[in-house]
Amino acid sequence: MFEQLGLIGCGLMGGSFALALKQAGLVKRVVGYSKSPSTTERARQMGIIDIEAPSALLAVSGADIVLIAVPVSATEATFKTIKHLVTPDMLIMDVGSTKRDVIDAARRALREHVGLFVPAHPIAGKEVSGIENADADLYAGKQVILTPIERTLAPQLQKAHELWTRLGCKVLTLTPEQHDASYAAVSHLPHLIAFALMNAIAGQPDGKNYLSLAGPGFRDFTRIAASEPKVWRDILLSNREELLAQSKIFQRNLQALEVMISSGNAQALEGLIEQASMTRAHWSMNSKNKP
Amino acid sequence: MFEQLGLIGCGLMGGSFALALKQAGLVKRVVGYSKSPSTTERARQMGIIDIEAPSALLAVSGADIVLIAVPVSATEATFKTIKHLVTPDMLIMDVGSTKRDVIDAARRALREHVGLFVPAHPIAGKEVSGIENADADLYAGKQVILTPIERTLAPQLQKAHELWTRLGCKVLTLTPEQHDASYAAVSHLPHLIAFALMNAIAGQPDGKNYLSLAGPGFRDFTRIAASEPKVWRDILLSNREELLAQSKIFQRNLQALEVMISSGNAQALEGLIEQASMTRAHWSMNSKNKP
Repeated sequence: MFEQLGLIGCGLMGGSFALALKQAGLVKRVVGYSKSPSTTERARQMGIIDIEAPSALLAVSGADIVLIAVPVSATEATFKTIKHLVTPDMLIMDVGSTKRDVIDAARRALREHVGLFVPAHPIAGKEVSGIENADADLYAGKQVILTPIERTLAPQLQKAHELWTRLGCKVLTLTPEQHDASYAAVSHLPHLIAFALMNAIAGQPDGKNYLSLAGPGFRDFTRIAASEPKVWRDILLSNREELLAQSKIFQRNLQALEVMISSGNAQALEGLIEQASMTRAHWSMNSKNKP
Repeated sequence: MFEQLGLIGCGLMGGSFALALKQAGLVKRVVGYSKSPSTTERARQMGIIDIEAPSALLAVSGADIVLIAVPVSATEATFKTIKHLVTPDMLIMDVGSTKRDVIDAARRALREHVGLFVPAHPIAGKEVSGIENADADLYAGKQVILTPIERTLAPQLQKAHELWTRLGCKVLTLTPEQHDASYAAVSHLPHLIAFALMNAIAGQPDGKNYLSLAGPGFRDFTRIAASEPKVWRDILLSNREELLAQSKIFQRNLQALEVMISSGNAQALEGLIEQASMTRAHWSMNSKNKP
């Protein structure tokens, strides 16, 4: 399907994408670049990329598909670096968790080439990061959200759709605004909460003892707190308006529960827990598309 | 090790305990009682109990071990019901997630027999409840916290310790106060937050769409939101002081993150996320006891 992938950012997401493309026989060569030369070298030693590029620009040279898998705040600089070697048939994608800011960056940096860029957000991740944890099956069975704009070229969009489908993903198309509002609620806010909870417990005099007593519920609840700090710093900042709005709604609901607890209103408390419990029990991943 | 288990409450926790004891060859007969006769019947049909008792009192008759596995708010009434048939060699335990309130109930209801009661909290659970989900391996490899008081009889405490150890559990002893403060932080607060988050999202006009887009991070984060409403109503109410104190600390930490996000203080934000991420990455279950 593709001759050459230019991979910019050899971390968990980028490395897993290269492995998945290779495993599916969708690409012949992967030319990779990472900010840290030792990471790029490691990616080649692991067979995830075939050729080390000394710059982002050279990683793009000769590619018919480019994946930008860097922290959101580095996206615009990356677009600027590569724009001189983009070609009319090239498909450029990202894997970022926010979309409006990335699209703004693409408009500013790529200008007349912005149509080559198909903004993509695969709903996949791990609590561990780095090329060492790259996994050819990271994306299989997961959702991928594409958020094309009016200037996105139809052939690029179609190729992106087909590529992710062939990696075993369920592809959905949303507007960038729908995307950012939705993920503020179901991903960015849970991360923010998980970070706050870990700090709240660890900051107490007996925090270490408390943590030593935690069980499987805590393990699953806080798994996302171990996410990569730079990546999540950028996500929380770039989607700040939607995120802070969601956090307000959350705190209102938390305080409603607190009022019932402190007043001992068992019936109302049970009602609210029941509502939460039923919602969660009836939820399942990709539920909209299940029979 | 035991002749007859009197099981009061044939749900997930009680049913799993009976199965685990049978599987380990630690009991000959299980006499069970549940508030709903159809549940008791179902437990017998499933082979989890051997004999259906028509009342809690009759479930205790002739038992050398009694497990009370009912919602916390029903514990005192259960103690009162059974106290006329307790015997000096009997071991009585519960599996409740809060301990001070259960001990207070035991003091009031059991009076001179309070020494027979060994308060126990196995750190195990599932997001599904009911006898149908009983699992002989639910407790294996998990922590069990015992919170004896000064009047707890030594032979009973020793038997309890041995029993849980033989079920494959790691047994720890804490004071009831230490227990309740710890679990307010690492269990009750996460549940409260998970309930609030589900309600916050589901209560929005686009909540259903948001939920349909959620991925594996959300799945794990909200797993505990599906917990049994009556059980959790009682836990949150009975440990309210510690819980509300922990919730305050959590909200302060959340708001500290929000300030950095709204002011765009990337460096400070990254520092706080890094702290949370490192704490979680270095945490593991039963970490205190690992090399």
